[in-house]
Order: sequence, then C-alpha cells, then structure tokens
Amino acid sequence: MTTSNTIKKVLIVFGHPERKSFNGSLLDATVKNLESQGLEVKVSDLYRMNWKSEVTEDDFPETHEKGTRLEVAPESLAAFQNHKLTPDVVAEQEKLEWADLVILQFPLWWTGFPAILKGWVDRVFSAGLAYYRPERFGDGAFAGKKAMLMVSTGGAESHYSATGIHGPINDLLFPIQHGMLFYTGMTILPPFVTYSAYNITDDKFNSILEDLYNHFKDIDSLKPIAYRKQAEDYDPKTKELKQEIVDASNEKGFSLHIRKD
Amino acid sequence: MTTSNTIKKVLIVFGHPERKSFNGSLLDATVKNLESQGLEVKVSDLYRMNWKSEVTEDDFPETHEKGTRLEVAPESLAAFQNHKLTPDVVAEQEKLEWADLVILQFPLWWTGFPAILKGWVDRVFSAGLAYYRPERFGDGAFAGKKAMLMVSTGGAESHYSATGIHGPINDLLFPIQHGMLFYTGMTILPPFVTYSAYNITDDKFNSILEDLYNHFKDIDSLKPIAYRKQAEDYDPKTKELKQEIVDASNEKGFSLHIRKD
Repeated sequence: MTTSNTIKKVLIVFGHPERKSFNGSLLDATVKNLESQGLEVKVSDLYRMNWKSEVTEDDFPETHEKGTRLEVAPESLAAFQNHKLTPDVVAEQEKLEWADLVILQFPLWWTGFPAILKGWVDRVFSAGLAYYRPERFGDGAFAGKKAMLMVSTGGAESHYSATGIHGPINDLLFPIQHGMLFYTGMTILPPFVTYSAYNITDDKFNSILEDLYNHFKDIDSLKPIAYRKQAEDYDPKTKELKQEIVDASNEKGFSLHIRKD
Repeated sequence: MTTSNTIKKVLIVFGHPERKSFNGSLLDATVKNLESQGLEVKVSDLYRMNWKSEVTEDDFPETHEKGTRLEVAPESLAAFQNHKLTPDVVAEQEKLEWADLVILQFPLWWTGFPAILKGWVDRVFSAGLAYYRPERFGDGAFAGKKAMLMVSTGGAESHYSATGIHGPINDLLFPIQHGMLFYTGMTILPPFVTYSAYNITDDKFNSILEDLYNHFKDIDSLKPIAYRKQAEDYDPKTKELKQEIVDASNEKGFSLHIRKD
C-alpha cells in the first residue's frame, strides 16, 4: 500500500440534489479547507451535471448495434478498450486518473447511495478499467489512490452503533468502501459521518465544521481501514479467506475482512 | 407477522437493462410459473418504462416552488399527504398497495442494486408512506406484505460464502432486505440467488429453472428471515437492541438483528 504518498489532488463526487443544503454547505467548507492546505480540488456535482444514472445501450454508441441484445460487461469492455465510451464517462475517468484522493459525498438514503451516485459508479467503473481484470481488492487500476466517504444520516448515531437497529455504520458502508472502492485498488480512509443531519443550527454547523477540520487536518497520515488484500489473504481459486486466518479470528461477516493489526 | 396470509397478487420489479438476457428469461419463467399456480402477476420493467432514477424537484410539482431550496423529505411528505406525487410514482405505489408479494429482480452490480432500481426505492418509498412515521422495521404501511429478492451474480458462490471475499451474500443483501423492505413492514422471504450467471447453457438454465420451481413451489409456507421488530426488541429511545438480547447472543454486526429461534 502506498499510504505514504502525499495527497495533492482531490476529486469530490457530490450526490445531493440540493446545493443549498447542509451537504452543500459542507461541500463548500471542505473545498475551502482543502484548498487552504494547498491542495487542488475538482468537484463532480452530479445533479448539476445532469448525470445519467442508468447503464443503457447508449453508453456504447460505437461498439453496440442499437436494438441488439445488450450484454453490458463485454460491451463495456469493448468500449473501454477501443476508447469509445461516452464523453461524460471519459471525463469522470480522467478526473479519477488525475486524483490522489477521491471523496464521495452523499446523504445516506435507504442505507446507501442516492441512485445518481450509484449510477456514477455503474457507468464510470467500466469493465477493463475497474473490473473484468484479475487484480481486485487492494490492487487494480486505482491502486495508490485513496478514497473517503462523507455521509450524512437522518437517524441518530445510536441507531447506527454496534447494536443499533440499522446495523453498524461500518457494516452499512462496507459494500461501498470494500466492494466498490477497495475492489478497484484504492486505499480507504475512515469516513466522515454526520448523524442527525437535520435542523442544523449555526452552533451545530460550527461544531460539525470543527470535526471536519480535525478529520482533514493531517490527511496524509489518516490511518486507512485495513481491508485484507485478495493477493495475500485469500485462496486464489475459491476467493475464500485462507483457513489459518479464519481460525485465528473471532470475527464473522464483514469484519473478517479487516486486519486487526 | 401475517405469514399465514395466502399470496394471490405478485408485483415483480425488474431492474435489468436487457429483456433478452438471462435475467429476462428468468423473469418470463417466473411469471409463467406463478400464473400457472393461479396467481395474478404485474411486472414493472423499469428500463422499458424509462423509469426516472433521480429524486429531483420535478417529483413535487405542486408542493415545491421551482428553483427554491429542495428539502427532499418534508417535500416528499407534503406531496404524499396532498396526493400530489407524480403519476409514475403514484402508479408504483398503487401496485405496491395491490400486491401481496413484491419481488425485486436484478443483477448484483457493485454489491447492490443497479441505479435504476435504487431510484425506484428512492422515489416510490415516499415520506409519509414508507418513512417519516413511527412504525418501522416490522411495522408500517406495507405490513402484511411479503418481499423477495431475485439476484444474479457474476462471481461464484464461494466468493459470497461465510468467508468469501465479497462478504456473505446475506450480509450484502441486508441493507436492501432489512434497511429498505423490512423497514416498511414487509416480511422478507429468502432470496433466490443465481451465482456465476454468465455463459448460461441450456443445461445450466434448466437446472436453474428447477431450483426456481422448488423455491416457488410452496410459496405461502416459505419461512421468512426472522428479523427482529423495532417495537419488540429495541430500546424505544436509542433504537439499540435491548441489553438482555445482546447478552444472550453470540452474534455481531447484521446477524444480531435476526432471531435464532
């Protein structure tokens, strides 16, 4: 892992419909904070870009014959390999290529991404680039890059605690952090989560800003989540954890896939 | 739980872009099988309906003034209460109201829903109907209804096993089954999962069909996933599991929220 790399360029992908929202204010504050640290920042504000959420045959205009059977992954691969993806997707892939740190900022809707942000992953993480290649989970096209989620929830923190009714926040974010981002080789920094994100008074906002500044204060030394790498800890054939690791662990479920050192 | 109710009406929400795909063939077979059992079936084929995935201000045409700050939940509530949601959303809510069983069928993309299906939940599960009400997790507008996922994965079954690299399939589906469907009061039937869903030969398809028929053979007595109800097992204030339940369990993470009886 290249966790000692210095972060210079940050891409923030913003998935909230309203720029004049709490999330919008937090985005502004984050950009300002990162720029004041001398970092370059780009923002993909998906709603303002009228981002297309659905994978359709129009995504492969030159490598798919309209009206014929769409196979998705092979056609995504052909379009990627032949440099025939659509300009909106190519632009996002170029921003990803450019960035040292990728931040996905969104309100937690029904336990996860708003559809538009899922559509960003579905379309930008094309075959050949992000999947359909042997390197995965700790290696891949985005190895060396870092990723971080910035999430707001309506529910209180206790609802997302170890015994909270929604399930632990880290488990809810696992499909995104591990199954999407770590999958492509990125190193995952701890998320910045704002609970009870409604009726935000000035006092509450200032206290959130203080947490935000602390979170980003020394961003290069933020300790990543220690997900296990496919190349090291899994059976190459079954993709199951090596038995000695399972035997030595008291964990179950998603937690098994995080090193305890 | 009203698990003894007889299922007569089934809504299938289909989230695959290609009707002439494996998932499309499985949809056809499922409809045929259910109809041959005397059930009524409706299909919401989201791609063919040109479903709009993004929550936008256009979703609240009469209760939101264009260009003003969009607050999402309160405006979703106002539109629902005043019967001013858009016709596409109302039509889906009416199908939900009609159905005894709701099946969501989709390919697992990046650990979850394709964006279009998330957009169906984001828009159809409006405030006042599906959330913004005290009854949740086992009670709510959809209490008495059953729900089931039909999912295909590219990866092999071992990748989704208890120690598989993606995490256990039941944990990956928990945010959908528990956080979206059980949340609204539905009873969750076990999912029908097809692994390694590519290069499907006739033999493989026939074997999958046999599994499908067995899964649906006695649908009224399929044993639901025993998620714990908010009204019974959680602290009313913190929404954390009651301490005696935590103390009596060896589970952690999502599994804590499933009864073992």
